[in-house]
Parts: sequence; structure tokens; C-alpha cells
Amino acid sequence: MPKLNASELEELIIQGFPDLRDDAWRIEAVDENYVRVRMPYHRSNLRPGGTISGPALMELSDVAMYAAVLAMIGPVMLAVTTSLNINFMRKAEQVDVIGECRLLKLGSRLAVGEVAMHADGDDALVAHATLTYSIPPKDQRPA
Amino acid sequence: MPKLNASELEELIIQGFPDLRDDAWRIEAVDENYVRVRMPYHRSNLRPGGTISGPALMELSDVAMYAAVLAMIGPVMLAVTTSLNINFMRKAEQVDVIGECRLLKLGSRLAVGEVAMHADGDDALVAHATLTYSIPPKDQRPA
Amino acid sequence: MPKLNASELEELIIQGFPDLRDDAWRIEAVDENYVRVRMPYHRSNLRPGGTISGPALMELSDVAMYAAVLAMIGPVMLAVTTSLNINFMRKAEQVDVIGECRLLKLGSRLAVGEVAMHADGDDALVAHATLTYSIPPKDQRPA
Amino acid sequence: MPKLNASELEELIIQGFPDLRDDAWRIEAVDENYVRVRMPYHRSNLRPGGTISGPALMELSDVAMYAAVLAMIGPVMLAVTTSLNINFMRKAEQVDVIGECRLLKLGSRLAVGEVAMHADGDDALVAHATLTYSIPPKDQRPA
Repeated sequence: MPKLNASELEELIIQGFPDLRDDAWRIEAVDENYVRVRMPYHRSNLRPGGTISGPALMELSDVAMYAAVLAMIGPVMLAVTTSLNINFMRKAEQVDVIGECRLLKLGSRLAVGEVAMHADGDDALVAHATLTYSIPPKDQRPA
Repeated sequence: MPKLNASELEELIIQGFPDLRDDAWRIEAVDENYVRVRMPYHRSNLRPGGTISGPALMELSDVAMYAAVLAMIGPVMLAVTTSLNINFMRKAEQVDVIGECRLLKLGSRLAVGEVAMHADGDDALVAHATLTYSIPPKDQRPA
Repeated sequence: MPKLNASELEELIIQGFPDLRDDAWRIEAVDENYVRVRMPYHRSNLRPGGTISGPALMELSDVAMYAAVLAMIGPVMLAVTTSLNINFMRKAEQVDVIGECRLLKLGSRLAVGEVAMHADGDDALVAHATLTYSIPPKDQRPA
Repeated sequence: MPKLNASELEELIIQGFPDLRDDAWRIEAVDENYVRVRMPYHRSNLRPGGTISGPALMELSDVAMYAAVLAMIGPVMLAVTTSLNINFMRKAEQVDVIGECRLLKLGSRLAVGEVAMHADGDDALVAHATLTYSIPPKDQRPA
């Protein structure tokens, strides 16, 4: 069962992914090995041609994975991304993007998850990422 | 031979990667199939513990690849990332990070490149990425 | 709807993945954007310690993606893998391994799919791969 | 400095990558964090159209990484691949393929390396892979 709820995760994301923008990431659902995150549309993420930028989608996948891992293990702030692989499949235009993370493995030292991303209101995938996270061993975590 | 110089590339990056921050990416070297980019240290990229964030390094690799491709083919703004794979290897602390992109393939439709990232003044790799870019065919580019 | 059935796909895999072994890959299910493949256990795939080798799992994911793409577009033999990303999560011992491919995108030129692999009789993932395939344009395919 | 020479590595590869074929992988050079491996051409690796198959190149990259890691840490047979990312760039025809592995990081628990692959006698890259390896901690290695 998840150890953290949506608002606790939103607070941890603000600490973990500091940003100059004033509209926060929103956690819309938390379940066993699953988190759904909304990235609100804002102008600064647009590439020429009016599409959501690649780096914004990479960050969405990283935020979703971070939230999914912390939801299951609790607020272990030193969990860090060790790898990310992302494929961009379609353009997303001026809308919110939804990222759904499913954990494929949650071991004591390593987590693997995938994040499917689609524009709000359209099921077609915009991008798909696979990430690995390193989880610090229990005796090395701050009290 | 590169078709664009460092200041032309910096201008294209500002258009291609709009940002709220006021310190720009800096192109430090441009050569055949090679670009070196400096990501200036600024607070907003820090994760808890004082290390440069993963998404900031992902964006550095994407900016370096974008610059390397445009340097060789000219200002084709519709060149877009189709995939990115990144491994994080060491923590980078409160310093500038240097990204060096080498193109492994530059075809008429697809480019593949790798980006090695290290902290300024330290050769040890902080992260390493491989990216693919889709290049629009010549007859579909804006005049 | 799929254009090819399981036995037609098995025949194409024999042509596409020539091998010295005499036990073939088996297609167990074909559906819209989905194929399930069985890799029979055989000694030659074992690594020291008695676990299924990494290259055998890589080939399973490539075979499953190949079958899923051909099932949907028909016997276009020149469809080729352009990239593969795989994470190994658990050891698989001396059993058949099942690979389930789901296509995430099937465009006219590019397909993206993921392959979840687990040991026969155990749902826990052994490995997970994401692949991209290049599909030759219709006017360049052999008649 | 490498702890193993080319013939010692070839022997470990035979144990680590059992195969029904009778022509072995050949280690052509071993240096600090670097190994060069030759994959002899043999018919069974060909795809339709006469090109070297993707899975054969994946295995080449895995063999090269395995050799590079063992060269540096000694015969730790339980070192295993945890992830592989490969991009295919050009077709290789009926020739030997050379894989050059460079270790990007060699930590006590994790190694990261890249493998550049080209046809014998042609510098253009056929494929490029990035791999991560898990290294068992010293106290868990067989004596």
C-alpha cells in the first residue's frame, strides 16, 4: 500500500524539483506501484511550432517516477535517478500532459518503472519512458 | 564543415529552448560533428543535497545535440529529438557543467549523437547520454 | 486487425532470425498491436550460475517486436530494429521465458513497442525492453 | 592496469557466453578501461537481405562490455548486465564486426561503458551501445 498521499507527494516534488514557475505539478492518483501526474501547460515549455518541449516531457517522466517510488517507500529524499530512456512519439500541443508511472520492480536498492505520457483528453501516447532509480540502503538514510 | 558558429547557435538555442532563466547556455566550441556547451550553475537546478538535478542534465544533453545537429545542417528548426538515453554516474555539485556532443551518424533523415557531461574542472563523467534526432526532409522545410 | 496468424509469424521468424538451434520460437497469441512469444528453454542460453543469458532475452524482445510489427503490417521483411533499450530485473532459471509485446505507436515509417518478459508460471518481470523499428515506405518494398 | 590478458578473457567469454558455434569471439586488444573484440562473420548471424542481425550486434556489445569489466576487476563471474541501450546506424554486410568498449565508470558496485561497432576495414559505425553492469560486492564473491 502507498505510504504517502497525493498532497504529501506534491510537497516532496516541490522540494525535489525546484523551479521558477509558479504552477505546480499535480498528483492526480496514487495506488499500489502507480502514480498519475499532471504537468500543467505553460508557455515556457513550448518549442518552436508550438509543441511541448522534449526536456519538459523528460522532467515529467522523472517527476512521475520519483513520486511513484516515494509513494511506496516513504520520504527517502536521497533516492536518485540512475538512468532514463525516452521515446518521443507524437507532438503535444498547448494542453496539459498526463504522465502515468507504473513500477515494474521495486527492490531494496533499485527501482525500475515506466511512464506513459499523453495529452489531456487524448489517449494516444506522446512519449514513453523507462527509468531506473537507486534507493539508498536503510542504514545510510538520514534519521 | 560547420555551417553555424557559436553565437549563431546560442541564438537558435534561445529560440528552441525557451526558459525563464536569464543566464544563457554558452557554446564554447564548434567543430566537425562536435559541439561543446556550458550549462552555467544556477540555483534552480539543484536537488536536495546540493547536486545538479537530473532534468537539468537531460536538458544539457538535448541542447548539446540540438546545437551539434544544427551546426552541421544549418538552421532547420524542425529537427526534433526522437529518443534519449542517459546514465547518471556521479553527483555534480555547485559548478558549471560541460556537455560535449559528438555526432555518431548524420544521415539525411536521422542523426545519432552522444553527449559526455562533466563538471567544470573535473574530467570524471557526471552523466552520459545518447540521442537520436529526426531531420525533416529538405522538401518539407520552411523556405 | 492482425494480418498474419501465429503460424505465419513463426515461419517469418525462422526466415528473419536464422539459428542453429532446432527448437523454434513459438507464437502463442496474436491480437491488435499485441503478440505473445515463448522462448523455449535450452541449455545454450544459460550463463554461469544457471540463469538465462542477457543476449537470449534481448533476442526474445527483438523477435516479439518483429512479430508484433509484421502481424499488423504484413510480411514486410525489410522492417528493421533501429534501437533497443532493455533493463534486466530478476534472474530467470531453467524455464521457458514468455515475451509480451505491445505496440505503443505504429506509424507509416516508425513503430515503437515495449516487451515485458517473465518466466513461464511466474508473473514477476525478468526483463523489460523498449524497441523502435523502421518500416520501409510502401513504394520501396519488394512486390 | 588490466588484470587479465586477451587469452584469459577469451576463455572467460567461452564460459560466460556458451554457444553452439565453433568460431570463438576474439579479443584483439586490452588496455586500461578498454577492450577490442572481433565477432567473426558466420552465416547464422545474417538477416534477410544479407546483413548482420541485430541480436548478433547486441551480443557483441555485451561480450565486449563483459570483457572490459573482467579485464579490470579480474574473473568475477557474477558480474551481470543490468541494462543495455543500442542504436543501429548502418547495415553491416558479410564481414567481421569489431566492437570497441570503453568504460565510462568503474565503481565498486556498478560499471558503465559504451561500445562502438564497425565493420572490419570501415570506420563508419554500424551500431553503438551503452551498457551498465552490476558488480557483486567483494564479500559476496566466491573464493
